[in-house]
Amino acid sequence: MPPSDRIRDHAGQGATTVAAHRARRRLRADQARQLADLLRHQLLAGGFPDGTLPHETTLATDYRATRNTVRQALDLLRAEGLVDRLPGVGTVVVARKYPHGLDCLMGLAETLREHGRVTNEVRTMGPAPAPAPVAERLQVKPGTDVLYIERLRRLGGLPLSLDLTYIPLDLGTALLGADLENTDVFRLLETITGQRLGHAAITLEAVNADTHSAAVLEAPHGAAVLMLERLTHLADGRPVDLEFIRFRGDRITMSGLLHRSA
Amino acid sequence: MPPSDRIRDHAGQGATTVAAHRARRRLRADQARQLADLLRHQLLAGGFPDGTLPHETTLATDYRATRNTVRQALDLLRAEGLVDRLPGVGTVVVARKYPHGLDCLMGLAETLREHGRVTNEVRTMGPAPAPAPVAERLQVKPGTDVLYIERLRRLGGLPLSLDLTYIPLDLGTALLGADLENTDVFRLLETITGQRLGHAAITLEAVNADTHSAAVLEAPHGAAVLMLERLTHLADGRPVDLEFIRFRGDRITMSGLLHRSA
Repeated sequence: MPPSDRIRDHAGQGATTVAAHRARRRLRADQARQLADLLRHQLLAGGFPDGTLPHETTLATDYRATRNTVRQALDLLRAEGLVDRLPGVGTVVVARKYPHGLDCLMGLAETLREHGRVTNEVRTMGPAPAPAPVAERLQVKPGTDVLYIERLRRLGGLPLSLDLTYIPLDLGTALLGADLENTDVFRLLETITGQRLGHAAITLEAVNADTHSAAVLEAPHGAAVLMLERLTHLADGRPVDLEFIRFRGDRITMSGLLHRSA
Repeated sequence: MPPSDRIRDHAGQGATTVAAHRARRRLRADQARQLADLLRHQLLAGGFPDGTLPHETTLATDYRATRNTVRQALDLLRAEGLVDRLPGVGTVVVARKYPHGLDCLMGLAETLREHGRVTNEVRTMGPAPAPAPVAERLQVKPGTDVLYIERLRRLGGLPLSLDLTYIPLDLGTALLGADLENTDVFRLLETITGQRLGHAAITLEAVNADTHSAAVLEAPHGAAVLMLERLTHLADGRPVDLEFIRFRGDRITMSGLLHRSA
């Protein structure tokens, strides 16, 4: 909020105590967050199909908010990299977040098929001795070689995720000659083993990207990253794929249905 | 990495080109990330029950990494606020992340029951006209009053999440006199309606906290936040609870099982 606004707010209100000023600022920040969350939902749900948000005064009327609150809400979305303001045009949607399903197990290319082409830059690939926690989860002896793969995954050319993958070597060897640039590991594993994948145990976290990961993902230093750890099993129950995936927070959402009774 | 280390790395190696230097630095950063992910898993899985990580040299041997890589990996975990280094003690676990299930629909107090007591500070509560996107999702007429609640939720006294909640007023009115400080809204809704909750549509994102949200959550500016948007329905299908929840990224993980065939 520019200082001039702050002064205007208080003009003609007579003596305003510091406490009242603070309370009002807190209230406006709360209201801006509340509005930003609603607009974020609209934005992710494709509610602005022409890529432009309504004018500030329209938003103010629609959401019964002051223009200052609307401006502050738009600033929050701009700081998240979701919208930008173009002079003479207004507030435009600049980033799309792509939906990744939490309801069933799919590879990235499969799940984002309708949104564009997923390509993979293989940064590292080769056999390496399995550290104890990897060995335990893939049910191989500690120190046994497993295939380690590091990929930068792009959608429509823009970095989407950085994936660290461990695969038992009996399956991994067959992957060495495969077209990893253009094919999901999930699909390759099903082809190699001749069976479907079964289930995966996943854990999701939000973390700030370290400097190096941010640079690889072409994201700002400290950018919020959606970390997915996933241990995938074949239909017969054998664990075959342990992955640590850093999704750019500004490019992906995970959606699913939860039921009250499991 | 302190500059002295960087110099030591190159001592006695003769002429090192800038490119080779960069490649080595990138390799070490990649290896540090790889190791940090494994240690993070161990940490979240309770793999260091006495709260202390093994000595750097032990980690270096166990993970076949150099001590520099180990140090850099521990720095990454420290930057995430998960561990700290205490002189004379070593690397200690300072933050616990609590697991929130993705497999079935539970309130926060229910899901974290074994980890401590959840208390709620009600920051705002009262009827407010439903903005269009809220009205649509709760299936009420736009502009109809709904109950708006804003709560800061704590586990063991420490901020865990900031929750913005919208509830249709016919149910909301009964909530006004309820013990929201100590009871999940889920539980109250089931008591009020006399029926179980059915399912919820959820969306998860990682975002950087804005200044105000960070301050409320007592987290650093720009801290990664796990945003959960959740529309919960009664067993009969009626949508009754729309929430926008900001979890502190350093205090929560979401875990679940995915199946290949939905």
